[in-house]
Amino acid sequence: MRLGATAFPLFAPAALALVLLSAVVPAHSTALSPATEECLGCHEEVTPGIVADWKASRHSRVTPAEALQKPRLERRVSAAAAPEPMADRVVGCAECHLMHAERHPDSFEHNGHRVHIVVTPEDCAACHPAEREQYAKNLMANAHGNLQGNPVYRSLADAVNGVQTFAGGKLTHAAPDALTDSDSCLSCHGTKVEVRGLKPRDTAMGEMTFPVLSGWPNQGVGRINPDGSKGACTACHTRHQFSIEMARKPSTCSQCHKGPDVPAYAVYQVSKHGNIYDSLGAKWDFSSVPWVPGKHFTAPTCAACHASLLVADGGEVVAERTHQMGDRAAWRIFGLVYAHPHPASPDTTILKNKAGLPLPTELTGEPVAEGLIGKEEQAAREGRMKRICLSCHSRQWTEGHYEKFAKSIETTNAMTLAATKVMFDAWDQGLARGLARNDSLFNEAIERKWVSQWLFYANSTRYASAMGGADYGVFANGRYQMSANVQELLDYVRFLHATREK
Amino acid sequence: MRLGATAFPLFAPAALALVLLSAVVPAHSTALSPATEECLGCHEEVTPGIVADWKASRHSRVTPAEALQKPRLERRVSAAAAPEPMADRVVGCAECHLMHAERHPDSFEHNGHRVHIVVTPEDCAACHPAEREQYAKNLMANAHGNLQGNPVYRSLADAVNGVQTFAGGKLTHAAPDALTDSDSCLSCHGTKVEVRGLKPRDTAMGEMTFPVLSGWPNQGVGRINPDGSKGACTACHTRHQFSIEMARKPSTCSQCHKGPDVPAYAVYQVSKHGNIYDSLGAKWDFSSVPWVPGKHFTAPTCAACHASLLVADGGEVVAERTHQMGDRAAWRIFGLVYAHPHPASPDTTILKNKAGLPLPTELTGEPVAEGLIGKEEQAAREGRMKRICLSCHSRQWTEGHYEKFAKSIETTNAMTLAATKVMFDAWDQGLARGLARNDSLFNEAIERKWVSQWLFYANSTRYASAMGGADYGVFANGRYQMSANVQELLDYVRFLHATREK
Amino acid sequence: MRLGATAFPLFAPAALALVLLSAVVPAHSTALSPATEECLGCHEEVTPGIVADWKASRHSRVTPAEALQKPRLERRVSAAAAPEPMADRVVGCAECHLMHAERHPDSFEHNGHRVHIVVTPEDCAACHPAEREQYAKNLMANAHGNLQGNPVYRSLADAVNGVQTFAGGKLTHAAPDALTDSDSCLSCHGTKVEVRGLKPRDTAMGEMTFPVLSGWPNQGVGRINPDGSKGACTACHTRHQFSIEMARKPSTCSQCHKGPDVPAYAVYQVSKHGNIYDSLGAKWDFSSVPWVPGKHFTAPTCAACHASLLVADGGEVVAERTHQMGDRAAWRIFGLVYAHPHPASPDTTILKNKAGLPLPTELTGEPVAEGLIGKEEQAAREGRMKRICLSCHSRQWTEGHYEKFAKSIETTNAMTLAATKVMFDAWDQGLARGLARNDSLFNEAIERKWVSQWLFYANSTRYASAMGGADYGVFANGRYQMSANVQELLDYVRFLHATREK
Repeated sequence: MRLGATAFPLFAPAALALVLLSAVVPAHSTALSPATEECLGCHEEVTPGIVADWKASRHSRVTPAEALQKPRLERRVSAAAAPEPMADRVVGCAECHLMHAERHPDSFEHNGHRVHIVVTPEDCAACHPAEREQYAKNLMANAHGNLQGNPVYRSLADAVNGVQTFAGGKLTHAAPDALTDSDSCLSCHGTKVEVRGLKPRDTAMGEMTFPVLSGWPNQGVGRINPDGSKGACTACHTRHQFSIEMARKPSTCSQCHKGPDVPAYAVYQVSKHGNIYDSLGAKWDFSSVPWVPGKHFTAPTCAACHASLLVADGGEVVAERTHQMGDRAAWRIFGLVYAHPHPASPDTTILKNKAGLPLPTELTGEPVAEGLIGKEEQAAREGRMKRICLSCHSRQWTEGHYEKFAKSIETTNAMTLAATKVMFDAWDQGLARGLARNDSLFNEAIERKWVSQWLFYANSTRYASAMGGADYGVFANGRYQMSANVQELLDYVRFLHATREK
Repeated sequence: MRLGATAFPLFAPAALALVLLSAVVPAHSTALSPATEECLGCHEEVTPGIVADWKASRHSRVTPAEALQKPRLERRVSAAAAPEPMADRVVGCAECHLMHAERHPDSFEHNGHRVHIVVTPEDCAACHPAEREQYAKNLMANAHGNLQGNPVYRSLADAVNGVQTFAGGKLTHAAPDALTDSDSCLSCHGTKVEVRGLKPRDTAMGEMTFPVLSGWPNQGVGRINPDGSKGACTACHTRHQFSIEMARKPSTCSQCHKGPDVPAYAVYQVSKHGNIYDSLGAKWDFSSVPWVPGKHFTAPTCAACHASLLVADGGEVVAERTHQMGDRAAWRIFGLVYAHPHPASPDTTILKNKAGLPLPTELTGEPVAEGLIGKEEQAAREGRMKRICLSCHSRQWTEGHYEKFAKSIETTNAMTLAATKVMFDAWDQGLARGLARNDSLFNEAIERKWVSQWLFYANSTRYASAMGGADYGVFANGRYQMSANVQELLDYVRFLHATREK
Repeated sequence: MRLGATAFPLFAPAALALVLLSAVVPAHSTALSPATEECLGCHEEVTPGIVADWKASRHSRVTPAEALQKPRLERRVSAAAAPEPMADRVVGCAECHLMHAERHPDSFEHNGHRVHIVVTPEDCAACHPAEREQYAKNLMANAHGNLQGNPVYRSLADAVNGVQTFAGGKLTHAAPDALTDSDSCLSCHGTKVEVRGLKPRDTAMGEMTFPVLSGWPNQGVGRINPDGSKGACTACHTRHQFSIEMARKPSTCSQCHKGPDVPAYAVYQVSKHGNIYDSLGAKWDFSSVPWVPGKHFTAPTCAACHASLLVADGGEVVAERTHQMGDRAAWRIFGLVYAHPHPASPDTTILKNKAGLPLPTELTGEPVAEGLIGKEEQAAREGRMKRICLSCHSRQWTEGHYEKFAKSIETTNAMTLAATKVMFDAWDQGLARGLARNDSLFNEAIERKWVSQWLFYANSTRYASAMGGADYGVFANGRYQMSANVQELLDYVRFLHATREK
């Protein structure tokens, strides 16, 4: 057997050119709806960037009917049939912004059309219903309510976002205003977008009337839309290009997952996977459906492990597409307060621990029995993820990796427990107010030192372990800080105790 | 209406190839001056990297006369006429390094020519006079003097750069040496480059004599050059390729704007704009003049918003080119100490607050009435920036964004005020020396905790708000830290007070 | 003289296409060994990602005999002759995983072959003996033993990795378990991989028996392999593609050199070199051997300065290839505790200072006379590095840069000394246990504050100085923190002293 150039399609310029061409030349000529033509008539002038972005999209070139003709594994739509009346029209401005006008409180009269500003998952579901269903089961779809409807979490947001004033030797916390919340936590969690009325405005086309929205702009993953739906598909499928290439690239996820609380992207960057992506990824194919490990890419991105449909070159499905991101994750390693088995429901406000707090674990770490997935479901999820690992790694490699990960969940939970016990001491001694005094757990300096133990250092250590980014998890923001912080916390208690006013 | 492949020039390989070709194949044959030919004769051997870099530049292929033949919006030179005698020569070694020899104290005899080492904005102005003029109005052009000539700012540099020694239970601060300053603050702010004499040296060509420069090498934005001019065009138009592509890419700005004091680049990376750039930017055209939003790029880089000439596909100017970077910025959010309306003059040493300090605000936050731009100028600048936003965003989106930004200026200033009041308490009690004891505001541990409040946390929160990078501004280096730090500061005062020597 | 398009091969699309083609089309047809064909028969199904990765490698296309036909400077192998029996076979699965079966304790019976899992530098040395020799002289090859065999360093690892528990008002440190060590420090330093027995497992091909390895998976640079050899070539030449392009790109180094202890990559990102790479590197040629500055790249990556064979366009060798990474580095700026001349032996456990500690300097900074390289060797190494600088920079530029670097070594060592003297005070007063009480230097909060002074802030300042990344070395993680931290340390001593139990 002799191997020739044709055995290496990934790197052959000719093949690359074909890949590029297939991405830009419509397979079929496509047609605009009359309404979309009207939109473009003005908006090519008024918002040329949006129009250009859309023109670069697949939406601008393919009709739902054409999209449905693809074999199942190549299909990018999940509807059983192409929705009328747009089946033979490309997906233009009007197709989305006029859809279900009656359901959208932000619909307004605009040049003879009922246009709504905020296109929602319910609109996208005309062609992508499976994705809407999966996404609704996602913690992310509930990110707004899970924060706003949980008094414990909300009190952390209050402590972080509220303005403090100093007078009489004391600092006082004000409640945060809505704009600050939306610029802070809700930027990722999603705001509640509401119509506040209508307002006329001078435009290049003369005076026009538009709805006034609060909580806007926002592209948070759990955005509450005017039609009551949850989520913003554009959080990942950005703006009017809705590029699958972009959704598959890791920087998209970095928007909300780089900071020290959930440092997935920072960890990825120093992982072997991330190194390979950064060095060689420019040659990969990020647009093909299905996505074939080895052929289209040689190291996974976030999407490869957590969302994409992966198919082996021979045609065997390695992983089904999912928009329920926890589908392949057995543990919730974003510890609030401890790492724990994933919640069973995406609505985490229904959890209640023995102390009556809406948390997935006790403050001493034991998982809440009800409301979290069981061992069987954990095994099923881990199995789905390992199936992906096995495309490029041996069974022993994979199991060895998971063994280290399990240990890091155990040790970081132990280090959180140590810090929590120190904190209990401080609360007991009245050195901080905490629950005993019916106060927030998170609004004093020493409490924040405790928060950093789990929110930053334990979380970061676990992410580094899960994704093989030790450089981040040791000295950047992990075990080094975690091991010193608990000791500093104890010294802090000592100083507060020694200097308390008698 | 039907859209074909030709409607998507941005992504068509053929178009891409043309773009590339137009960047590398001279539109006209070009000619080297005899002096440049001489330079190349040796320097292709001696410093091949510099020569190769220059060969890849537009300077090596286009003469000033040719450059001037372009229509106004496509022109990369701003001179009214091509400077003689180089009008019909490409811009080679000799054209820049021999120009105005008499004005350059670092000119030296070199193989029969008066060569100067440090090419300055005055030299570049032969072809780019408008850019020199604009840049001179820039805070950056004055970055050296604004630091070195302001005793308050300079005392922060002293505190950071000076070596400390420990003896007798006390730490003593030495004044920093010039090399450390130039390796630290002045690396970005710019050194003062001075000729210290001439010195012979053995070279591959035998012994030769060269001027000895202090403060060299340096490419800081406010470098004081031997000819007295301010700035280094190569700070952004790097080295001998002077690539507009590089100046338009955000990593160029990261050299001085990533750290926690001015985290523009770190924020950009987690913003939607940065995500799009990182995912899709490899397909964009960074070389065309003018730069057309939507056509050449689908998300802005630093340059797009702050510097570049932007023209809509139809030919309408969206933003004029500017090298006065504050031109589109109403607020100086790099708070020293508070965010404030931009200074009117690029020389900020002339500011004086009521306490007599050379600061743009009182230590309690009120802007200095004189010396800062007024509301009208602020509105004009904000208008220029919003005009850019509107290429891709609706008016409501844009205004909503600015509303959040205004609120973040207000709340971060309030959080700086709270910390400053705590600090006043510490100074009053003699727990730190500060102004009251005629000492630096910045050279004690507790003072530095106060500095971090505004220099890092308030600044970072504002940058995150301005550019939509909440992931950075909440947990990485923003509201989380800002809200805890002020409380730690108060505890610090408590500990210092309780442990003071009686 | 007139320059045409052909003078700019780096940026000509035609040339680029040729470069790409030469990377993917075998110069000669190549042949698989029968054993490798057997491997591929199953593994294309079982681990398609590995096979695809290998197919994209040069190993899959070139035989050792062909590789040896290249002129010396273009050669990628260093063996004098092609090893039999694989001389005329491409380097496939069997060539590496069956080699020297008898020397590998992890060899096991697998479909009629003695396969070993862990391919080691001894295997690679069949074709790359010079690289194996050089690498063995590298600190990195000894990274496992230098940590595990040095009780001082090991006690830092214990302090960082051991789980702490809180009871009776005290925190107690447990010794870290092996999994945590391997997930933490040893992830980069390398684990000891040992065979623990054989175990049958169900596979897609029926039950098969495999060796059970401890310390696996791991790709640390100093990995102790089952055959007793040190190192993992795949640490940089990642996985089965073994791409020289990847090894030359800086993100590969970021896996272990981004964190605040050794922030080389973080510094590079904000250096001019890094800015240029990030902006223009997509157009460079990372695969050619030799590597020609100016022609193939216009700014160095990590490999360019520390490892690669660099040849001027005219054919003159600028730098010989080396896998002894310290070869061009006079100083070890990764201070444990102080920066010092590089150790002479890669085994640093043999160092002993006057206090009897296995450290390269006294705790007060004086270098250990024996065991470190002398001034002559330092000058030779610095000379090799400067030779590289001179490809693109003048002599004065280069010397000026090194002058600043030397000063930063001096001042950061002084700042470490100041902190160490404060720490001595704390130990003397019994405010921390330390050596005087026969305890670790690193396992109390105040000791860690001292560790951060040198491990993070002094180190980072030096890296920033060495590589021109002031933005990192001033405010991100350098002089700002270093100058405040020593003062905080002194205040910490004060608080501990004032609140000690009598």
